[in-house]
Amino acid sequence: MIIVMNPKANQMQIDDVVSVLKNSGLGVHISQGTERTILGIIGDKSVLRDIPLELMPGVDKLVPIVESYKLAGKTFKPEPSIVDVNGVKIGGKELVIMAGPCAVENYDQIMDAAHAVKKSGAQFLRGGAFKPRTSPYAFQGLEEEGLKLLLEAKKATGLRIITEVTSDKAVELSIPYVDMFQIGARNVQNFQLLKEVGKSKKPVLLKRGSATTIDEWLNAAEYIMSEGNYNVVLCERGIRTFETATRNTLDLSAVPVAKNMSHLPVIVDPSHAAGKSKYVIPLSRAAIAVGADGLIVEVHPNPMYALSDAAQQLNPKEFDSLCKDISMLAPILEREFTYEA
Amino acid sequence: MIIVMNPKANQMQIDDVVSVLKNSGLGVHISQGTERTILGIIGDKSVLRDIPLELMPGVDKLVPIVESYKLAGKTFKPEPSIVDVNGVKIGGKELVIMAGPCAVENYDQIMDAAHAVKKSGAQFLRGGAFKPRTSPYAFQGLEEEGLKLLLEAKKATGLRIITEVTSDKAVELSIPYVDMFQIGARNVQNFQLLKEVGKSKKPVLLKRGSATTIDEWLNAAEYIMSEGNYNVVLCERGIRTFETATRNTLDLSAVPVAKNMSHLPVIVDPSHAAGKSKYVIPLSRAAIAVGADGLIVEVHPNPMYALSDAAQQLNPKEFDSLCKDISMLAPILEREFTYEA
Amino acid sequence: MIIVMNPKANQMQIDDVVSVLKNSGLGVHISQGTERTILGIIGDKSVLRDIPLELMPGVDKLVPIVESYKLAGKTFKPEPSIVDVNGVKIGGKELVIMAGPCAVENYDQIMDAAHAVKKSGAQFLRGGAFKPRTSPYAFQGLEEEGLKLLLEAKKATGLRIITEVTSDKAVELSIPYVDMFQIGARNVQNFQLLKEVGKSKKPVLLKRGSATTIDEWLNAAEYIMSEGNYNVVLCERGIRTFETATRNTLDLSAVPVAKNMSHLPVIVDPSHAAGKSKYVIPLSRAAIAVGADGLIVEVHPNPMYALSDAAQQLNPKEFDSLCKDISMLAPILEREFTYEA
Amino acid sequence: MIIVMNPKANQMQIDDVVSVLKNSGLGVHISQGTERTILGIIGDKSVLRDIPLELMPGVDKLVPIVESYKLAGKTFKPEPSIVDVNGVKIGGKELVIMAGPCAVENYDQIMDAAHAVKKSGAQFLRGGAFKPRTSPYAFQGLEEEGLKLLLEAKKATGLRIITEVTSDKAVELSIPYVDMFQIGARNVQNFQLLKEVGKSKKPVLLKRGSATTIDEWLNAAEYIMSEGNYNVVLCERGIRTFETATRNTLDLSAVPVAKNMSHLPVIVDPSHAAGKSKYVIPLSRAAIAVGADGLIVEVHPNPMYALSDAAQQLNPKEFDSLCKDISMLAPILEREFTYEA
Repeated sequence: MIIVMNPKANQMQIDDVVSVLKNSGLGVHISQGTERTILGIIGDKSVLRDIPLELMPGVDKLVPIVESYKLAGKTFKPEPSIVDVNGVKIGGKELVIMAGPCAVENYDQIMDAAHAVKKSGAQFLRGGAFKPRTSPYAFQGLEEEGLKLLLEAKKATGLRIITEVTSDKAVELSIPYVDMFQIGARNVQNFQLLKEVGKSKKPVLLKRGSATTIDEWLNAAEYIMSEGNYNVVLCERGIRTFETATRNTLDLSAVPVAKNMSHLPVIVDPSHAAGKSKYVIPLSRAAIAVGADGLIVEVHPNPMYALSDAAQQLNPKEFDSLCKDISMLAPILEREFTYEA
Repeated sequence: MIIVMNPKANQMQIDDVVSVLKNSGLGVHISQGTERTILGIIGDKSVLRDIPLELMPGVDKLVPIVESYKLAGKTFKPEPSIVDVNGVKIGGKELVIMAGPCAVENYDQIMDAAHAVKKSGAQFLRGGAFKPRTSPYAFQGLEEEGLKLLLEAKKATGLRIITEVTSDKAVELSIPYVDMFQIGARNVQNFQLLKEVGKSKKPVLLKRGSATTIDEWLNAAEYIMSEGNYNVVLCERGIRTFETATRNTLDLSAVPVAKNMSHLPVIVDPSHAAGKSKYVIPLSRAAIAVGADGLIVEVHPNPMYALSDAAQQLNPKEFDSLCKDISMLAPILEREFTYEA
Repeated sequence: MIIVMNPKANQMQIDDVVSVLKNSGLGVHISQGTERTILGIIGDKSVLRDIPLELMPGVDKLVPIVESYKLAGKTFKPEPSIVDVNGVKIGGKELVIMAGPCAVENYDQIMDAAHAVKKSGAQFLRGGAFKPRTSPYAFQGLEEEGLKLLLEAKKATGLRIITEVTSDKAVELSIPYVDMFQIGARNVQNFQLLKEVGKSKKPVLLKRGSATTIDEWLNAAEYIMSEGNYNVVLCERGIRTFETATRNTLDLSAVPVAKNMSHLPVIVDPSHAAGKSKYVIPLSRAAIAVGADGLIVEVHPNPMYALSDAAQQLNPKEFDSLCKDISMLAPILEREFTYEA
Repeated sequence: MIIVMNPKANQMQIDDVVSVLKNSGLGVHISQGTERTILGIIGDKSVLRDIPLELMPGVDKLVPIVESYKLAGKTFKPEPSIVDVNGVKIGGKELVIMAGPCAVENYDQIMDAAHAVKKSGAQFLRGGAFKPRTSPYAFQGLEEEGLKLLLEAKKATGLRIITEVTSDKAVELSIPYVDMFQIGARNVQNFQLLKEVGKSKKPVLLKRGSATTIDEWLNAAEYIMSEGNYNVVLCERGIRTFETATRNTLDLSAVPVAKNMSHLPVIVDPSHAAGKSKYVIPLSRAAIAVGADGLIVEVHPNPMYALSDAAQQLNPKEFDSLCKDISMLAPILEREFTYEA
């Protein structure tokens, strides 16, 4: 960390700051500029957590130099991580597609969805059993009944299962049924929930919040990892901006940036940001082209009759066409993806 | 709701949409324009929840006319609500000040803070026992030990107690100790938690999320109210924008706007948005001038030694000066606030 | 347009609004709902420009249904436009690459850049002669001297020339030298300048402003087109959001959205949003994958010595590798691009 | 400026950077941390303008410590500036109110507005003769005819005149008629125009752009000041955020922040952000309470018939009530404002 002193700070004030730092066991480099003095701190800054340096007389501002996350960062682990979800590897050469309906609705719907996405090449079935909705009057999910249907679909197809968990209770209920937890955008700073999935040791897909910086997102990953669960996959799904033509603005730059700051795999959810199925296919292609390790896409056997987020779900034919595109893009990007017509 | 048909929609497509609406028991007004047809829907739109009208052939877009919240809205209750917290009325003529440290740290700190804020005119003591922090390595709060200290401070001063709850467990633990729950900005869409404080029936201060629209904020209030707990007070605390000179951008327009859309009282937290104590006093004055029903302000007996958010906490002398200002502003705004020098 | 009346509006107020509309020569459809009355307006709404309907007693809000631009919209021209710049067609099957340094610096630099980008397949040379800079103390461009150097590079390579114009005087000076004008993000609502390039009839690349909605961007295009110049190409270059890890957030969704709302071609500038050359290549690939008609990319023969925006300029080798990638992506997307190793 | 080296930078790379700095005549302080080396630069950094340090091998990032503006900053002039506009002082003890219609429409309208705002205590008449509008089909202003009407109103009332200028030609035309130029939000980075009003030496009201950081705003002021015109007054008018309930989010924190970073006076325009007249009065009170030096408010003798921005203009009675409020708030804030009932 750098401490920038005020141009008017006097020597006594500078000395006071230096002695606070030294008393905390830190080294200090004093840089006497033409206009002001700057102090560089050397050592483990976590000892400063409880010292409000910014309030000391003569201090103008603190400039953090090193990120606050550790386990999620490249200093801790420079090479990319591969997260293994019961044999499916996320972050390796193979592109991973998670697909399925927004919400689990009934046996026929989830079975039809599972067979359709499996056929086109998806490795995961997604489907919400616990649905966080803006209005309390909207459909909230089938809960454990939904989890059971997901498990049946898994048995029938061999797909891995991923589902969103929204509370400690949902985590507990889901453990026997699913292969991977999803933390939704609204819960990215629900620290209690992050710790809970951290304790579970099951792989976690961590969506970025709609107003979460990449730095905060990696700190959220750190909450999970600091409980001993290193199986975290990041998922960009759009941020909130002034533009209202799309529901959110899909921040595809976040993919190479997050991969530059962290060793964790990064996938993209184009469905929630686009809000409309006609934008999902081009955004999916772009996500793969920018370097994502995979996609999570909403696919419904009959979007017209979906109980939630109908407008953004692909039908099986559109999804199949997308998988075909991805299989053609993959070799150009030195990735692999198996599509069989 | 209005359904705007595509300029190219044919008569059969229009008829299909109309018959879906009529079959759902709704009335329809058909408006045949020069360029396109527009359908106005009459009746209880909640029956449409599960019908993806936006996917029907010929439909261009849906335009919602009526807000999705009910209990929080003015159609349900046109006159302003007053929330009574064990005798202190929020939303009436009297301005209400909640003050105290960011986090409860120890007996002396909370007692000193309580006596100081009481003396200047505050009606509530605030203090965090459960602290949601961006980094898992930052101070996380004293938990039940903190709640006990708050109760002691209440007994000594007669102040009402408000504390943030971050999980179902925190709600359960806090019930015997506190007068009012606070839902923090990060949990504004933690629907499980909203339902839990709804069930408790204790008054709730609901902070706006840093990326939450006013409409979503009122829908979050609706989650609490739909559990039968109507004692909700809204709290504006800054939104996330591109400007980085302040931690968040305090959206003071949200006060008159929320009061125009809802009957619920609205107070303002200037501390978290400002990020620096020197901006807290002018923003507090502005909050009162714009029509807020009160403030929640961070005050620490010795901010230099605070364990969290040191830079933004007022010291007792600064807080006293703020209360004096408010007592002078109140009569001009036809409000009341008692300050005794 | 739809007029939503207040639930409390009385019949006289409704009648007043209706008669204002009818007196303006418009048709009105009255939709009497259970809670409120809604009025649909039929006819040419431009007669309402000067009537503040939103202030009439009983009116709650106006909901626009139709966009305010005409010439830029699909209602006016449903099929995609192709802009011909002295033989190079933008918006057709061929992908168009504009490349070159941020600023024209000297003869050697611009000649080296021109030969390099030509060799890899670019059809346009870009280079700034007039540089709008945040600080008045930063390098501001070579002005007419720069234009002359661009013309020499054109003669030597056959590349088309595009340069940014920042004032009426810059437009006038540039006319004899360049093939296409660029309007920069900061001038997207400099309406005087938009009219000036509109009058010139030369093709215009119109960058989106960093805080400009797609709707406003198309209205800016309308300013140029309403002067009789239909040769407008849109350019997405990143919007301002809360995220600071990249200079701007490249909004790739804007490409399919703008193509859905308008017939104009859309290209992407990945350099300014990324801010760092290492993110330019993946974002360029993503821009092509999402459906852009081309790219404008900063390339400098020796970025280390660039006088402006050094960090984001590709060197010729990186640019060549990008062009090779694009030539491989093009056929998958049913586009064409010629790269010769 | 601070240069943060990569943790993996080797000694040769560090030496290279140091020698570039020393060869540029700068001093360097080398701070060897446990993880990485940090270089502090001492001396006039403007010599580095053309050296892309961020591209040198081993460099991780540059951290600017000192702001890029000089004349607008407090280092240059620590005490607050007072801008004298033909005898009316902005930035002193007296609060200054600029009021009048959005656009000059005709003789009666501007005369009625002038007499009304004068009577309530305003010192300036505002009125647009050149109107920048999002759509080319909206009313664009009376131009010189409007300026003549403003001058007549000035002669009749003694009010100072402020009008927006949108091009070099508008500046030239306006010089004989007006006391102060206004640069609108859309032109805050129209550097050509900033230089032009800088050369004129007439006082300038510089509105913040809807996506302009406070730092960029002060750099825009620097463009005017670097031409020798120090008579600049800043005006906060709302920034673009995700919230759509108001047209823009009025950033009242910007008032104390800008006053902390700069010596220039700061006033507030509540009308454009609010978008609705009912929010203008509370926001005006808040602007004064937060420490603004004055207001610029839209007042129309008959808002119902206004040719532009009708919804946000106050009528004379509402404006009178606002002035009365301000006269009561002023003494509490140690300011002055004369209102005569």
